[in-house]
Amino acid sequence: MIEESKSLDGVMAAMGEAARRGAEALRLSSAETRTAAILAMAGAVRASAGTILAANLKDLAAAEANGVTGPMLERLMLNPDRIEAMAAGLEAVSQIPDPLGRVTDHWVRPNGLDFSRVRTPIGVIAIIYESRPNVTADAAALCIRSGNAAVLRGGSECLASNMAIHAAVVQGLKAAGLPAACVQTVPTTDRDAVGLILAGLKDTRGHRCLDLIIPRGGKSLVARVQAEARAPVLGHLEGLCHTFVHQDADLAKARAIVVNAKLRRVSVCGSLETLLIDRVAAERLLVPIAADLLAKGCELRGDAAACALVPQMIPATLEDWTTEYLAPILSVKIVDGVAGAADHIRLYGSGHTDAIITENSAVAEAFIAEVDSAIVLVNASTQFADGGEFGFGAEIGIATDKLHARGPVGAEQLTTFKYVVRGTGQTRP
Amino acid sequence: MIEESKSLDGVMAAMGEAARRGAEALRLSSAETRTAAILAMAGAVRASAGTILAANLKDLAAAEANGVTGPMLERLMLNPDRIEAMAAGLEAVSQIPDPLGRVTDHWVRPNGLDFSRVRTPIGVIAIIYESRPNVTADAAALCIRSGNAAVLRGGSECLASNMAIHAAVVQGLKAAGLPAACVQTVPTTDRDAVGLILAGLKDTRGHRCLDLIIPRGGKSLVARVQAEARAPVLGHLEGLCHTFVHQDADLAKARAIVVNAKLRRVSVCGSLETLLIDRVAAERLLVPIAADLLAKGCELRGDAAACALVPQMIPATLEDWTTEYLAPILSVKIVDGVAGAADHIRLYGSGHTDAIITENSAVAEAFIAEVDSAIVLVNASTQFADGGEFGFGAEIGIATDKLHARGPVGAEQLTTFKYVVRGTGQTRP
Repeated sequence: MIEESKSLDGVMAAMGEAARRGAEALRLSSAETRTAAILAMAGAVRASAGTILAANLKDLAAAEANGVTGPMLERLMLNPDRIEAMAAGLEAVSQIPDPLGRVTDHWVRPNGLDFSRVRTPIGVIAIIYESRPNVTADAAALCIRSGNAAVLRGGSECLASNMAIHAAVVQGLKAAGLPAACVQTVPTTDRDAVGLILAGLKDTRGHRCLDLIIPRGGKSLVARVQAEARAPVLGHLEGLCHTFVHQDADLAKARAIVVNAKLRRVSVCGSLETLLIDRVAAERLLVPIAADLLAKGCELRGDAAACALVPQMIPATLEDWTTEYLAPILSVKIVDGVAGAADHIRLYGSGHTDAIITENSAVAEAFIAEVDSAIVLVNASTQFADGGEFGFGAEIGIATDKLHARGPVGAEQLTTFKYVVRGTGQTRP
Repeated sequence: MIEESKSLDGVMAAMGEAARRGAEALRLSSAETRTAAILAMAGAVRASAGTILAANLKDLAAAEANGVTGPMLERLMLNPDRIEAMAAGLEAVSQIPDPLGRVTDHWVRPNGLDFSRVRTPIGVIAIIYESRPNVTADAAALCIRSGNAAVLRGGSECLASNMAIHAAVVQGLKAAGLPAACVQTVPTTDRDAVGLILAGLKDTRGHRCLDLIIPRGGKSLVARVQAEARAPVLGHLEGLCHTFVHQDADLAKARAIVVNAKLRRVSVCGSLETLLIDRVAAERLLVPIAADLLAKGCELRGDAAACALVPQMIPATLEDWTTEYLAPILSVKIVDGVAGAADHIRLYGSGHTDAIITENSAVAEAFIAEVDSAIVLVNASTQFADGGEFGFGAEIGIATDKLHARGPVGAEQLTTFKYVVRGTGQTRP
């Protein structure tokens, strides 16, 4: 969709420069303006339902022609319910308390200097994502709520859908008096565009326009971003989530939690991938939990000790401890108490979300201290790893890096701050 | 200082693995242990003064033989006063409130899930720095205070001094029962070691051991880090600081602040590099300020309008707006009000520290809103850009990136957090 006479480099440089102007307009805009823009986006998405669905049909036809089937095709598909959900999602983001301008710390030094730490936008954020066209609307809204300009690069298989949704987003921006450059989408499937984003989206003077890159997608995308990015990255790695069932677990809770953590939705990053069972109570705990999972069609792959307790279990290989199945498959290992569980998680976990089930609060605290993951849960399902469940209103993903933001990334996590120091003529001795 | 039989790769991989074990020990250590370690380091630095000074003499002799002179040599030099200042600095860091384990946010969701956000260490931090051997002690102490393992790589010109200071640091760690691997220093001047650090310090399995890289040094070091780093970087770019004197400035305050901001110490990153003067009051403001600066031996380089008012001023070139002099030289430009000042800062600033001098509070607020720098000052000297002056106790530098930390980086800024979610059996609907 780029005119042949224009080079990709030139188009991307122009996007970078426009994004910087958009970021400047957003930084100086009021919370009311940003709220109005997001609400207008919701209205425009509803009003454009026909256009968006027509574009989606084009994407679906092309995908089917390319042999895409099953869950991949299902994720790509839009329908009137999903469009309505997208609009309702935008309205929800419009209601998130505006994070900008808030003074998050304030103190006065003995010399009278008055220090405030004030929330500000990050600037220009590029989001690289795969399938699920609703991310176009979600990401745009979260960036506008947090005052950041967005450069969106969706999966090539839903370019038409994304462009149609983006057109509605731009209508919303314009209705609120904000420049269209506040949210841009890369109008091509050319993979070189990703390379230019990872290089930081340089302007024509060679200056980096991007302040942050957020990858949302599979392992190969994340690997490419990690290898090539020349701008800060907010990493969203896989969720290799563990649940450790301790000998003092309430068995009824454990059964309900494990089934929910694994099977509520198997394709989300907070789904359980490895179950760790306390050796001293292995038989009492594992046999009923395994029966529940098997009855619901979950495949179990266990170490030798687990297989000895559950005959239907398949022997696990080393690969099972490092695999995010995103499928009704669960690996199971018998471990020695909290220390054994923590060792396994340290070795194989992805630092995303890990849980313990126990009625013993001292043991729970030991697990919390030992396990260095973004989210550590006690007596609850790992499927709560979600910005909505945290009360953030919406999220752009779950960060597994340790810098800036960890866990669900909502509007507040997309901000930075500056120090404002008010004096009365102070000079430094 | 590496045995010839050992490869640099092997030595660095072993350092990475050891650092990870050190980080683990620190993460599980108590605040009291970390305080004791830092105090013991201070004692060991004092007790090792003779050894450290002897090592420093070796570095100084080698540097002089290599033709190093002037400020560079002066920065490298230690003496009994500087050793005592180093020990006192360690004691000061030992008194900084421990940042770890603090609950910085807490809420309960309608389903009863109880959320805490708890401060945790980042993990393993590599610090790459140039000259000033005291950084070895400062960086070690800040990392221990914040529970992070440190891998230090100082300038090759002070390797002997750094190794001697490091030996005292290790004594302190051991006295408090912490492993020596909590603070390691790269025992070679081989520049390939920097490359291995920038690659993330891989262990023998090829896994990255570093969680963060902090460069502290000149432009060429920072440029290399930005080009090569394969781990998150906390950037410390130059401080191209501006002060805008507005027409409603109190002239006496303006004169004192500008002289202090430029000349108190010209070699620090918070020193003033460009003075912006409000056009409508240019003569009244600039003439006396320029006279003060010239009387104190400061060279002035101005645009045409400034040169017309101050005959001793040298015409500025484009390069003057982008140069961090770190010398008694100041560039001067006449601009049109806050908007003109903000435009200049946006174009040429480094996002470090910028100030306005005005008695008009509405104008001050407009400047605060317009200028997106880590530190924005009103009626005070830019030389206050310093962790100590902020009340942070100590700093490892001033971050000019927007992610994670901005401005002075003290112990608190070297931490991250995790979410602890306590439930009573909740499953997700």
